[in-house]
Amino acid sequence: MALKQLGDRLVRFVGGNTGRWRVLAARPVQGDILPQAERIAVCRGDEPSPFESQWTLSGVISNIRYVERPEQKELTLKQAPLGRPEATMAALIPIRKTAAWWNLTQEERRNIFEKQSHHIAEGVKYLPSVARQLYHSRDIGEPFDFLTWFEYAPQHSEEFEELVRTLRQTEEWRHVDREIDIRLMREPEG
Amino acid sequence: MALKQLGDRLVRFVGGNTGRWRVLAARPVQGDILPQAERIAVCRGDEPSPFESQWTLSGVISNIRYVERPEQKELTLKQAPLGRPEATMAALIPIRKTAAWWNLTQEERRNIFEKQSHHIAEGVKYLPSVARQLYHSRDIGEPFDFLTWFEYAPQHSEEFEELVRTLRQTEEWRHVDREIDIRLMREPEG
Repeated sequence: MALKQLGDRLVRFVGGNTGRWRVLAARPVQGDILPQAERIAVCRGDEPSPFESQWTLSGVISNIRYVERPEQKELTLKQAPLGRPEATMAALIPIRKTAAWWNLTQEERRNIFEKQSHHIAEGVKYLPSVARQLYHSRDIGEPFDFLTWFEYAPQHSEEFEELVRTLRQTEEWRHVDREIDIRLMREPEG
Repeated sequence: MALKQLGDRLVRFVGGNTGRWRVLAARPVQGDILPQAERIAVCRGDEPSPFESQWTLSGVISNIRYVERPEQKELTLKQAPLGRPEATMAALIPIRKTAAWWNLTQEERRNIFEKQSHHIAEGVKYLPSVARQLYHSRDIGEPFDFLTWFEYAPQHSEEFEELVRTLRQTEEWRHVDREIDIRLMREPEG
């Protein structure tokens, strides 16, 4: 039990009254909402958490699970990094999937994820406008299975809305049993 | 960071001088050995760890990653549970795989794991004699990626040796960069 050994693979999103990301809106898409927070601090590795907070969600960058080699090549070619100066808008969308989902085999999950729901193909359309990072939470005892994080410039807001709308209509999303959609705006440091 | 929320999905193997499993032998197959321990205590969920210990290895029971539905059905039909009274022999084999392995896609890993190495097909041959449980450690910051655990009756020892010999000769094992083989015998409680 040495999560700190994960180094920068570990991230904590801390909801409270400090942090560079100001909460614009937070709504429960499925299931319960989290306590209200004005700001979110993003702490990596052993960076200290803010002293006071309403909640903390932790996740781990892991190996890829569904993406196949040609998709991986396309993603690598097209995707944008986190932290672009112009990407001042963000979304933190924690997601939990049903027990039935987790009892599926890998190929059954991949089948729903991509063959039926086109999760990767849909996401690729919005690259490089929307930068993404997935954090895994299920196997570290967190309330969500994934923390999904997106960064984009204000002029790409409508594209981002389209992406989340599309994904929420897929077969895959019928296996989501808790989801919160938190929208954020980055504020200058200091 | 709430590993205790995992409940019985979390296990800790604690090497020291207490615990029901007496260490018969411990040898490094690849890479560094662990400090010597006389006994291993197996603690689940929030069971307290022994007061003194040489080392602790933690792992999490997770969803299946490689097994496909027909294989899963066969496994469910044939496999034995842990804790059978007659299964007084055990092996704890912590394994770490290379960075190159983790950079492969899921289907590339499955291809090596089963198509080339027959990991599942070979394992099935030794059911129900050898009961197995896999614990995942990579995403909780542990020194190993997996903790593999096997229990068997003394009369099946040679079968177990054959299983580990077979797996260590596979293509998959070329991606193992640290492995320790710890053999154990259960002693009556109290």
